[in-house]
Amino acid sequence: MDAILSYFKEHESRFLEELKQYLRIPSVSALSAHQSDMHACAKWTADSLRAAGMENVEVIETAGHPIVYADWLHAEGKPTILVYGHYDVQPAEPLDLWKSEPFEPEIRDGKIYARGATDDKGQLFIHAKVVEAWLHTYGKLPVNVKFCIEGEEEITSPNLPAFLEANKEKLSCDIVLISDGPMIADGQPSIEYGLRGVAGLEIHVQAANGDLHSGLFGGGVPNAIHALTDLLSSLHSADGSIAVEGFYEGIEPLSDEERHNFSMQPVDENQVKESLGLKALYGEEGYSFVERTTARPTLEITSVTGGFQGEGIKPIVPCQASAKIACRLVPPQKPDDILDKVERHIHEHCPTGVTVSVKKVLRGNPYMTPIDHPAVRAASDAYEKAYGKPAIYVRGGGSIPIVESFSRLLEASVVLMGFGLPGENLHAPNENFDLGNFAKGLETTSYYLQNVAELELK
Amino acid sequence: MDAILSYFKEHESRFLEELKQYLRIPSVSALSAHQSDMHACAKWTADSLRAAGMENVEVIETAGHPIVYADWLHAEGKPTILVYGHYDVQPAEPLDLWKSEPFEPEIRDGKIYARGATDDKGQLFIHAKVVEAWLHTYGKLPVNVKFCIEGEEEITSPNLPAFLEANKEKLSCDIVLISDGPMIADGQPSIEYGLRGVAGLEIHVQAANGDLHSGLFGGGVPNAIHALTDLLSSLHSADGSIAVEGFYEGIEPLSDEERHNFSMQPVDENQVKESLGLKALYGEEGYSFVERTTARPTLEITSVTGGFQGEGIKPIVPCQASAKIACRLVPPQKPDDILDKVERHIHEHCPTGVTVSVKKVLRGNPYMTPIDHPAVRAASDAYEKAYGKPAIYVRGGGSIPIVESFSRLLEASVVLMGFGLPGENLHAPNENFDLGNFAKGLETTSYYLQNVAELELK
Repeated sequence: MDAILSYFKEHESRFLEELKQYLRIPSVSALSAHQSDMHACAKWTADSLRAAGMENVEVIETAGHPIVYADWLHAEGKPTILVYGHYDVQPAEPLDLWKSEPFEPEIRDGKIYARGATDDKGQLFIHAKVVEAWLHTYGKLPVNVKFCIEGEEEITSPNLPAFLEANKEKLSCDIVLISDGPMIADGQPSIEYGLRGVAGLEIHVQAANGDLHSGLFGGGVPNAIHALTDLLSSLHSADGSIAVEGFYEGIEPLSDEERHNFSMQPVDENQVKESLGLKALYGEEGYSFVERTTARPTLEITSVTGGFQGEGIKPIVPCQASAKIACRLVPPQKPDDILDKVERHIHEHCPTGVTVSVKKVLRGNPYMTPIDHPAVRAASDAYEKAYGKPAIYVRGGGSIPIVESFSRLLEASVVLMGFGLPGENLHAPNENFDLGNFAKGLETTSYYLQNVAELELK
Repeated sequence: MDAILSYFKEHESRFLEELKQYLRIPSVSALSAHQSDMHACAKWTADSLRAAGMENVEVIETAGHPIVYADWLHAEGKPTILVYGHYDVQPAEPLDLWKSEPFEPEIRDGKIYARGATDDKGQLFIHAKVVEAWLHTYGKLPVNVKFCIEGEEEITSPNLPAFLEANKEKLSCDIVLISDGPMIADGQPSIEYGLRGVAGLEIHVQAANGDLHSGLFGGGVPNAIHALTDLLSSLHSADGSIAVEGFYEGIEPLSDEERHNFSMQPVDENQVKESLGLKALYGEEGYSFVERTTARPTLEITSVTGGFQGEGIKPIVPCQASAKIACRLVPPQKPDDILDKVERHIHEHCPTGVTVSVKKVLRGNPYMTPIDHPAVRAASDAYEKAYGKPAIYVRGGGSIPIVESFSRLLEASVVLMGFGLPGENLHAPNENFDLGNFAKGLETTSYYLQNVAELELK
């Protein structure tokens, strides 16, 4: 490993120059004006992997922007890691808020500023340089490695799932390794081993066949908004838990180890409260803010509307009202099952005189790799070797559908090793990436390849 | 009285020709293009009253359309009746749905079709012809009579309250007589002796200082829509009554006589339900549909909004939600007191973590003349003499602020004697007025003047 670390030192300034080249390509996937930049960026990515020593490098056309594939598969009997990342970036606007040009990288205070610096070119580039170091130093990698780099992550990856489905064999692997997010705090590495799923539905309440004059009918007919608010109010219990029968079915209680890990996260609930301008936080009794927002399922009403929406009060008994609900799910909850249960609750609690209908519109599976999975433990150990302290195990409260797709379609464990930091302005002006973490990322990933080589995953 | 009835018969065709003239004037108060028609119509009204024998006839300018005043005050020691009505009409559009021209009256099947036929020129004209009959036959009226005819009723009478306030002496009276609505059914006269008041407010719930990503914050922070729906749901009890403390304070139980009267109304609850497309009617337990919609107070949510209003589900924890509420009030409820009580309820039930604010925006007093008031009994008797059956006593569920203004500012009893019918298309194409009721109206009103002359109201 010393030779690898020396290689990184020796080539440090070249790496930086190459990263600057990469960041100069304005590969904005959302804007058609950047069509040729997208192809140039895919080609740059492919050339870089080829120069690193990767084989079978391809730029594969899709219905949208191309996908870059590469592999090196000569570590016989060893596990296979698939590195996923993306070469596309968010639009740079508003331009006037940038201190330096978004596509002309500048280094200030040990950080490189440019669109795409942390999301995701800078982090993705780490993996390219790690395989280069191994292949140029030893002529081989300790494990089998594949790259699958897309150009549509910032526009919700419309073509990736079909690509995975169609190329299961080509992409088959044991571990999907993704560096596309922040660690939990500066100097504190973290591993995201779970993500919540999502289930969404719309509720529509119909009372009379038209809005009615409240002077003539008020008090004597069902009011669609009354009915809807009663329905919505019935979805939670007084203790903040969700009152839908069977909603929590099958969810394992949080283990002592998990709760200990959560408590290690540097989250100050008072500070959260104050920064959001809230009088109090709120949620399911018996759980901390971190647990509520990452490890417990939720049911949030995201929208409600009914009655006269103009200025002033129009004295009607409204005939229609509707709401939208988004649930966040944790394993083993399944979106379809949860949607069925919420729908049943709504029909069973339907107030007198009105008709209620439900439209199920959003589904995403939750994802979790057990924290005691060897691929996860190996990541924690790699972080500890590079950073001098163990990684904190965290769960993400959001949903990254592509992670679940990788896991399900390739039947692989996904390991999310982020080298970014909170506050690096991803999707915002003055995006940047800490060069200290770039260097530590090279080390950590090298240790990870070495650690995985020791695992018996087959 | 025989001489009066003969006068009506003798002059029947002239009355009809005059009414047609009146209806030909397109006195649409809402449209500035009809400015000169408004003045022409006020002048026509004044000329008609002058020809009838009324004195001190004036066309009085206001900030809007003029008011017509007239009086005859020589019945010394007798009560004074102030007739209120309006010469303005609703716009006639959509014109293509009229069978005959809206401002070219046509008689079909015993009904006169024209804009303003029943609302209110046809009904108002009855009173002009009654005083004419008395003054031309006997040279005097059995009571003192004043007319106050406005031209802005269809645009919410913006200048009338100030006019009443400034002319209390001139308009002083014992009874305000208004014929500007329907009787309850063909052949079944009715007297509206009460109207509900109104109180309106807006509720705004604020949670965090911005919408939050439901993946990052969902489950751990207050949701403005949850808080609002819990609040709104708390306003009613399971039995359909209003759960605001003190809301019903001071309201007298319905008397057996009132409930009997309500039960006489030709309202078929099944038919109401079916015509509105409802599975069931709904309201406060222990009351009929008629009672709920006319004699009991209500609290209706008229509008609700919160969260992302675009297409699809945006997975946020919304920071804002708001609703509008309109209450209908019965005596002795006062709008300000009710608004205070609802506001107190809202603050006392404010869910954890959010801030709630209330804006009071709408106030109108309820109005009621006791059904045993002599001016009301006299009206019932007059109806019975003309129609051969007693009037049903009804209460109106809506609010006509001008009725309450008359009652309060002039300290007079208001008697609502309608000669229109349901289904005469007021405010709609093919407005009409039944000529049978025009004739019965002349009779009824004549009897009413005679009956009131017998009363000791001073």
